[in-house]
Amino acid sequence: MFSTVAVDGEVRRWEDLRLHDFAQGFFFGAGFFTTFRIDAGAPRFLARHLARLRASVAAFPSAVRAPTPEQLSATTVRDTLHRCLRTDAALGAGFTGVGKLSVSDGHVLLTLRPASPEAERHRLGGRALDAVEPGAYRRGEPTLNHKGLSYFRQYTLMERLPLLGNEAGEVCELPTANLFFLLDGALVTPPLNAPCLPGIIREVLLEAGQVDGLAVVERPVPLARLGDAAACFFTNAAVLATGVPRLLGRELPRSLSLAEQARALVEAVARREA
Amino acid sequence: MFSTVAVDGEVRRWEDLRLHDFAQGFFFGAGFFTTFRIDAGAPRFLARHLARLRASVAAFPSAVRAPTPEQLSATTVRDTLHRCLRTDAALGAGFTGVGKLSVSDGHVLLTLRPASPEAERHRLGGRALDAVEPGAYRRGEPTLNHKGLSYFRQYTLMERLPLLGNEAGEVCELPTANLFFLLDGALVTPPLNAPCLPGIIREVLLEAGQVDGLAVVERPVPLARLGDAAACFFTNAAVLATGVPRLLGRELPRSLSLAEQARALVEAVARREA
Repeated sequence: MFSTVAVDGEVRRWEDLRLHDFAQGFFFGAGFFTTFRIDAGAPRFLARHLARLRASVAAFPSAVRAPTPEQLSATTVRDTLHRCLRTDAALGAGFTGVGKLSVSDGHVLLTLRPASPEAERHRLGGRALDAVEPGAYRRGEPTLNHKGLSYFRQYTLMERLPLLGNEAGEVCELPTANLFFLLDGALVTPPLNAPCLPGIIREVLLEAGQVDGLAVVERPVPLARLGDAAACFFTNAAVLATGVPRLLGRELPRSLSLAEQARALVEAVARREA
Repeated sequence: MFSTVAVDGEVRRWEDLRLHDFAQGFFFGAGFFTTFRIDAGAPRFLARHLARLRASVAAFPSAVRAPTPEQLSATTVRDTLHRCLRTDAALGAGFTGVGKLSVSDGHVLLTLRPASPEAERHRLGGRALDAVEPGAYRRGEPTLNHKGLSYFRQYTLMERLPLLGNEAGEVCELPTANLFFLLDGALVTPPLNAPCLPGIIREVLLEAGQVDGLAVVERPVPLARLGDAAACFFTNAAVLATGVPRLLGRELPRSLSLAEQARALVEAVARREA
């Protein structure tokens, strides 16, 4: 993480921030965050990330103190980001990497980090998925529709990256990504009440309605059906789409090219929305 | 919360602590805490609270950076607490209230607050419980056996205080307390895999084996059986035991005296262990 950060639009040094100002976020995990890609200084899908963040804050009005609306507006955050990039020679106006907005105690904290070399490697070569946690979630569990600072369940699983299932034997998501499967001739992703996070890239693909001529649909995905999947990829805001060349021991050679096409589609939408 | 706190045994001002030193606790809820009663300067069940905290840290070695063993020893924490109390005239060596130990990023943070007037009022007059969240937890969910900084699920429910159930229709706990029911002539509390927190007062009562001649046992409690409960109380480290004079609309007049006897028993054990 870079030392240049911003709190409520003011450029600060990370080392100077006080725990006092983020107390409920620390003591109770009472807050939300979102992570977004920055390409050559341009934040990707910022308006969508902020809409989700605002919706999460609005869903828990008594538990999380909201920042001012202005601090969660795209204009303000974009301006703040650009001031951070210009302030720090290690960043620069053409910075490419990952931004993170954390909201708690009425404050908005912007932090920046380089793209993860491991994630970028997987972006090219794919990432095999060989573990499952069936029953990790339960259907309709509401806090899992929000990217909260109470992130420990997902955090402990980030290395191993198991497919998380619910009590009905259905797939939900990966600890930090949404899942798409080529099943019965369509690209299927679990519904939000599986539960899973309403990921921004997931939303963009659902809105697009197709990838490579395949319809993109929300539908419950039984773990028992994964043996029938002809391809698989996962999406998140930092890497966009990553192919799964091996799913639970089975080779899926089509996954990499499908992920590449999904990524190209998402990048085109990102350019339109920039 | 009082401004006098301690980090790793050093007395500090709350306002001076840096977010930087508790980053993984804040960003990912990667840490644990425990809350304990302090009577006239004496921390209650401190050795037990520290044993649970150490067990939680040991259970997630790659996700939470552990403090040095010395910083989680009863001798060190007791000494730190007494230095805090002597430092601050608003506290004083005879302070009565609540202590909290939060562990993240290799650090131990001690904070202090007065007893909650509302909780003390309920200690005397009881607290009715009239709401249920069936299926809030699932059986065996491991993170719920640890008091984690990822506390948002419980935090959002603290005001309403519903009974939390699992997918099998069994009672688990309250958002911040363990439950005991007088059922079939015994005092029954849900087992840890319900799941519920291994509360310190719960442990003390189970070890004692009886309250008022009633056997204390761990056993699944179906929500459907609550209509047969003849009394109910809940336990936590701050108030010890609180009677439930009305459970889901049904008056339970015996609850208050039973809670009082449980509290007297716990206080006697606390004095022996001091």
